[in-house]
Amino acid sequence: MTAALLAIDWGTTNRRVHVLDAAGNVLETVCDAMGLMMVPSGDFAREVAGIRARHGDVPVLLAGMVGSARGWVNVPYRPCPVGIEDLARSLHWIEPDRTAIVPGVCDPAGDVMRGEEVQILGAVAGNLVPDHGLLCQPGTHCKWAHVHGARLVEFATAMTGELFALLKSHSLLADFLHGTVADGPSFQAGVRDAMDGHLTTRLFRVRAAALLGQRAIEDSAAYTSGLLIGHDVWGQTLGPGQSVYLLADPQLGALYASAIRLAGGLPMLIDSQAAFVAGINHIWKASQR
Amino acid sequence: MTAALLAIDWGTTNRRVHVLDAAGNVLETVCDAMGLMMVPSGDFAREVAGIRARHGDVPVLLAGMVGSARGWVNVPYRPCPVGIEDLARSLHWIEPDRTAIVPGVCDPAGDVMRGEEVQILGAVAGNLVPDHGLLCQPGTHCKWAHVHGARLVEFATAMTGELFALLKSHSLLADFLHGTVADGPSFQAGVRDAMDGHLTTRLFRVRAAALLGQRAIEDSAAYTSGLLIGHDVWGQTLGPGQSVYLLADPQLGALYASAIRLAGGLPMLIDSQAAFVAGINHIWKASQR
Repeated sequence: MTAALLAIDWGTTNRRVHVLDAAGNVLETVCDAMGLMMVPSGDFAREVAGIRARHGDVPVLLAGMVGSARGWVNVPYRPCPVGIEDLARSLHWIEPDRTAIVPGVCDPAGDVMRGEEVQILGAVAGNLVPDHGLLCQPGTHCKWAHVHGARLVEFATAMTGELFALLKSHSLLADFLHGTVADGPSFQAGVRDAMDGHLTTRLFRVRAAALLGQRAIEDSAAYTSGLLIGHDVWGQTLGPGQSVYLLADPQLGALYASAIRLAGGLPMLIDSQAAFVAGINHIWKASQR
Repeated sequence: MTAALLAIDWGTTNRRVHVLDAAGNVLETVCDAMGLMMVPSGDFAREVAGIRARHGDVPVLLAGMVGSARGWVNVPYRPCPVGIEDLARSLHWIEPDRTAIVPGVCDPAGDVMRGEEVQILGAVAGNLVPDHGLLCQPGTHCKWAHVHGARLVEFATAMTGELFALLKSHSLLADFLHGTVADGPSFQAGVRDAMDGHLTTRLFRVRAAALLGQRAIEDSAAYTSGLLIGHDVWGQTLGPGQSVYLLADPQLGALYASAIRLAGGLPMLIDSQAAFVAGINHIWKASQR
């Protein structure tokens, strides 16, 4: 099979190139650390030319922070509610019918995303999730997205992953956060403690509990991760048995799944790569109509 | 008047020496940046000898992080509930009747303090606050202390100030937090938004609101401070008109007072220096009985 479309998920630190055939199947995926920060300013055109030289001289559809002020072109956000057709109509064409950037989405309540919208709407378009429900994309900035009638209607972003990294690198807790983070009794204790919403006092007690011998230092990182992910899940006030569709890598997905279960929800792990590819395929097809 | 007692509030970054007469009046207060981090290891005895040489060869009572593992001696915490008499009985004597460290206090629920206990119990002993109520000591780590029958019965610490500093120095929000922090519409909007407890999503929206032109970048620091202090106050679930006794410097005191008012409480600003001096005087007297 030969390449028909190159779908590029281009973020700040990482880049993922999916080579797709005419039917939308993935022929090859190449991940590297050529995020925006590694691209000498203005050289996006040359980078894309290089990708075409390697994978085929075919149309290129880009999504993610490449469409931000720090990227190739600062493409305006498309406000919610938004569906596949809306994104297709709002593509920023760098070369007509050949190279385009998918716009990010904003929630008029005051939130923004770039790249996640392709996964979210792709998960629906690719029948990986129903056309109505709550999706979660854990990460440095965790997205919680409500889909209704196959459109992204509202979303919120939590700084969960970034806060954990800040605490681990620069805070008074830093010396206590070298342990392994995995699902287990310490992580789950953190999630349970997070269910009253009192984040900043709970965080201080991580250190206090270690000083008082109430928790082993090696368990503190898992507990703290449980507190932060628990706060994130608590903020969604899940109904009993409410499904949450998780677009995540296996490790982070397992932590969120555990926290969602403890909060009374029903986590469903979805393949985020497959969702992205389905999203790009549907956007591309809609743009060609 | 001549010095009768030297009361030293010795923290990690600052040191405050109060020279007291026999009646407990302050003759002189000297503040400097000779916190623990500036004292070459093991040199506390020489530092104290220097203070005596400058202010008088009289008893010295120390409080604060000087009694921690990073300080002169790691003095065990005294568990709540705790009163002036309990602290006086638990002094760690370095030289009998001449040099002692006031122990820190722990809450068996998993919290610790060193130094704040002198202010809290001193505020009560000095009749600056009633012997029953809620006290708040804003700062890098904000303490909320419940006093009952003139004893400290329970407390919680929030990482409020430290989180603001982390966000300002190292986070994705850093570029947005250069504005002035003062009480006003932006600070109060942050406090109001904090009243649903959803801290991590609200924090991300600081950046999003600036990107979307919904809030001026110069107002973002005050708003973020409002979010963090608001979360702190929200965590206390104040009753309508509930008094909160604030032991704070005027600037931080004004911010907390505003947030407490917005949360329905009644803030009362108390002189924290006077509370510390009253605390040390009462502890010293009780130790001499």
